[in-house]
Amino acid sequence: MKVEIIEKMKNIVGVDWVVTELSRMQSYLSDETEHLLKPKANEDCIVVKPSSAQEISGIMKYANQEKIPVVPRGGGTGLCGAAIPTHSSIVMSLERLNQYVELDDKNLMVTVDSGFTLAQLNEELNKQKNLFFPIHPGDEGAQIGGMVAENAGGVSAVKHGIMRNHVKGLEVVLPTGEIVNFGGKLIKDNMGYDMLHMMIGSEGTLGIITKVILKLYAKENHRGTLLISFDTGEDAAAVVPKILQRGITPLAMEYMERYVVEKAAEHLGLTWPAKKGSVDLMFILEETTEDELYAKSEIIVEMCEKHHAVDSMIAETAKEQRNILEIRSNAYTAFKEEIADALDMAVAPASVPDLVRDINTIAKKYNTISPVVGHIGDGNTHNFIMLVNGEKPSYLDEMRQEMYEAAIKYGGTVTAEHGTGKTRKKHMNLQFSDREIEIMKGIKKAFDPNGILNPGTIID
Amino acid sequence: MKVEIIEKMKNIVGVDWVVTELSRMQSYLSDETEHLLKPKANEDCIVVKPSSAQEISGIMKYANQEKIPVVPRGGGTGLCGAAIPTHSSIVMSLERLNQYVELDDKNLMVTVDSGFTLAQLNEELNKQKNLFFPIHPGDEGAQIGGMVAENAGGVSAVKHGIMRNHVKGLEVVLPTGEIVNFGGKLIKDNMGYDMLHMMIGSEGTLGIITKVILKLYAKENHRGTLLISFDTGEDAAAVVPKILQRGITPLAMEYMERYVVEKAAEHLGLTWPAKKGSVDLMFILEETTEDELYAKSEIIVEMCEKHHAVDSMIAETAKEQRNILEIRSNAYTAFKEEIADALDMAVAPASVPDLVRDINTIAKKYNTISPVVGHIGDGNTHNFIMLVNGEKPSYLDEMRQEMYEAAIKYGGTVTAEHGTGKTRKKHMNLQFSDREIEIMKGIKKAFDPNGILNPGTIID
Repeated sequence: MKVEIIEKMKNIVGVDWVVTELSRMQSYLSDETEHLLKPKANEDCIVVKPSSAQEISGIMKYANQEKIPVVPRGGGTGLCGAAIPTHSSIVMSLERLNQYVELDDKNLMVTVDSGFTLAQLNEELNKQKNLFFPIHPGDEGAQIGGMVAENAGGVSAVKHGIMRNHVKGLEVVLPTGEIVNFGGKLIKDNMGYDMLHMMIGSEGTLGIITKVILKLYAKENHRGTLLISFDTGEDAAAVVPKILQRGITPLAMEYMERYVVEKAAEHLGLTWPAKKGSVDLMFILEETTEDELYAKSEIIVEMCEKHHAVDSMIAETAKEQRNILEIRSNAYTAFKEEIADALDMAVAPASVPDLVRDINTIAKKYNTISPVVGHIGDGNTHNFIMLVNGEKPSYLDEMRQEMYEAAIKYGGTVTAEHGTGKTRKKHMNLQFSDREIEIMKGIKKAFDPNGILNPGTIID
Repeated sequence: MKVEIIEKMKNIVGVDWVVTELSRMQSYLSDETEHLLKPKANEDCIVVKPSSAQEISGIMKYANQEKIPVVPRGGGTGLCGAAIPTHSSIVMSLERLNQYVELDDKNLMVTVDSGFTLAQLNEELNKQKNLFFPIHPGDEGAQIGGMVAENAGGVSAVKHGIMRNHVKGLEVVLPTGEIVNFGGKLIKDNMGYDMLHMMIGSEGTLGIITKVILKLYAKENHRGTLLISFDTGEDAAAVVPKILQRGITPLAMEYMERYVVEKAAEHLGLTWPAKKGSVDLMFILEETTEDELYAKSEIIVEMCEKHHAVDSMIAETAKEQRNILEIRSNAYTAFKEEIADALDMAVAPASVPDLVRDINTIAKKYNTISPVVGHIGDGNTHNFIMLVNGEKPSYLDEMRQEMYEAAIKYGGTVTAEHGTGKTRKKHMNLQFSDREIEIMKGIKKAFDPNGILNPGTIID
């Protein structure tokens, strides 16, 4: 990296906040993407840690003028390589934008700096008793700005949707350096094109998010977990719409192949409580009153029994609930050392059994297995392509392609919540025509005429 | 309009579906925008009525090649002149794209052609007992495609949000003629930039919507209406967040100045039931069970009484409920003949009393009144600028500008739900910087390189 760039950065953010030694930079050149797929970082980078939108504006004006790539970086919890610099870049860590700006309980909204983490947000919100923020991807180290940039999802989407549904306002530094505000403390806003929604999920390619206004909701304090077993995936899937049509919206509805959760339980030294059947549905309910919780739990159990459930249990104690959830959460971890790729497809919820059947057929063809866990309420499956004797399988690309084509066949998407980033960009033509990709390039150019912001992510 | 254009259109859609006589075209050259503000239609137009996306694709390819403006048109219920052609144009009415394509009760989604009206959708959904679609702007003649293009709102946004929250997939003909699909039956989709959300609210400037996939919800059959009176707007506004924080989310929360609803009642030959106080809050609740409805109604009344309510009534019978709602719905109609402009600003819900105070102060300065009704739960006020002796007031532009500046001062927006269109476009610089408007122009150009689709709307 050129000396004048380093000097300029030190001028803007202060000498203490510029990292140039590779050894101290390593953790900023990676994210949580699977090892085999992770893009190789360009090591000719510097890490800068601005403390304000004004400093970021200064950096962007300079970078735009000199055409230097800038890669913004949140908590580094991403799964598509979006935060990994593949060009010689200024890596901009947002960790110092870390203020809890304002809790506005009159409007049920909270304003935080983009570098505030989900863990910090939840800690602050727990200090008052009324309000909570519903989105929870796996890792609480995620920064709120990163969660906006990736349009984070998670298990609670059945009831609460995704990040997009709860972001009301953003402060953004444009690639050309201007500081702007999109949206606000507004429930309705139809002026001009919707720049707020354009930013959500744009993965740090259209602007650098510096402040976020989020909608909050009244806490629902009564939580229950149901575990219901079926002989087949079709039986399990069939009951899901019946429950929703009945007006019951669980926080989460998870679909789990038995051998996957049994292995996850073993990994944790626990025992999976269900024995009968081969597929489990886990329902998490969160309700305002205990009466509502019990009434809805009973209805779900009854409906499942009518729909060929072979076993059902209500996790009564907090410990039982925690164990089940922990096992489910460790489905990935238990297999991690054996995984070449973890896919993130989605289809219409009712098509999940079809997709799972296709996944199993494809795996069999390659003489392997592909364990599946799924957020069935939102049609989002995570299935794994396994290593072969600890090595990358020769058929990895081919097999993945076949699985993506299966999702597309059912009107699905290659990535439901993990994002396009640098790893799934090459599959965009499965889902979009050339003209659509050309339009996306035009959108990118409108925001970032010199193509300096996070190059290689989504759009080249 | 040139003969060869007319001939080409007849070739594509058939002679019966091209209107060239001005007398038969008049209703296609207008919408519901206030008379004084309505853009003057260019009468050198033809109206074409295609029956399919394929025909629309043919029209767009030709129009794009020949650089002929095309103005897509839904139900004509818009309030910002977006559907009025101000250039010599092909006016494309979508009335023949009128199929109820599919009710998918397994995924709780419905697919309709864009020209299907809200009235038709509700009629179809009423034939089955489980599912409903929650968005309801005033006029059921609105077409679903138009509701997407305008990102329709309405009174039920407190509970159900706006159109954007419920649109899952779109079939769109691009300005360059390609037929594409954005989104699908997907709850989560993070591939590429979000083209689906870019289309929502783009007012027929980025593409022509031909099919819409909407999310449906389990019906909540128990509806109740509360009317609670306060001495001041501040008292009324203060209770709103308390109710939401308690975990009660009414379908609607309406704020009404007494003299406005009294006049609306008189206009209908009815009597407004509340006498004490000067401001009313109307709550509409929609719940799954009668018990829930009663329990929540009681809590609301109690909370209002604690917050200085001076009177409260629960509308017990369907007739009482209907009367109150009808009076509220006629606030605009009652004043219609005296209105120069009906504004559509929004601020944070808690700032509504501040905005109302400013509106009254500004009106007083011009020696007039400005009646206000508001969707207080979502911070959206509708206030009127009155005619003076039936004539346009000389101060109209000045007074409107001051009111918009008041909304902006509180972090608000010029238009919450009625849209930018051709009438509010000139106020975009109140809310956006030059650079932001330049980016919007770039987005428009990416979709529509020749600027043929609905020129003069949002972006020049």
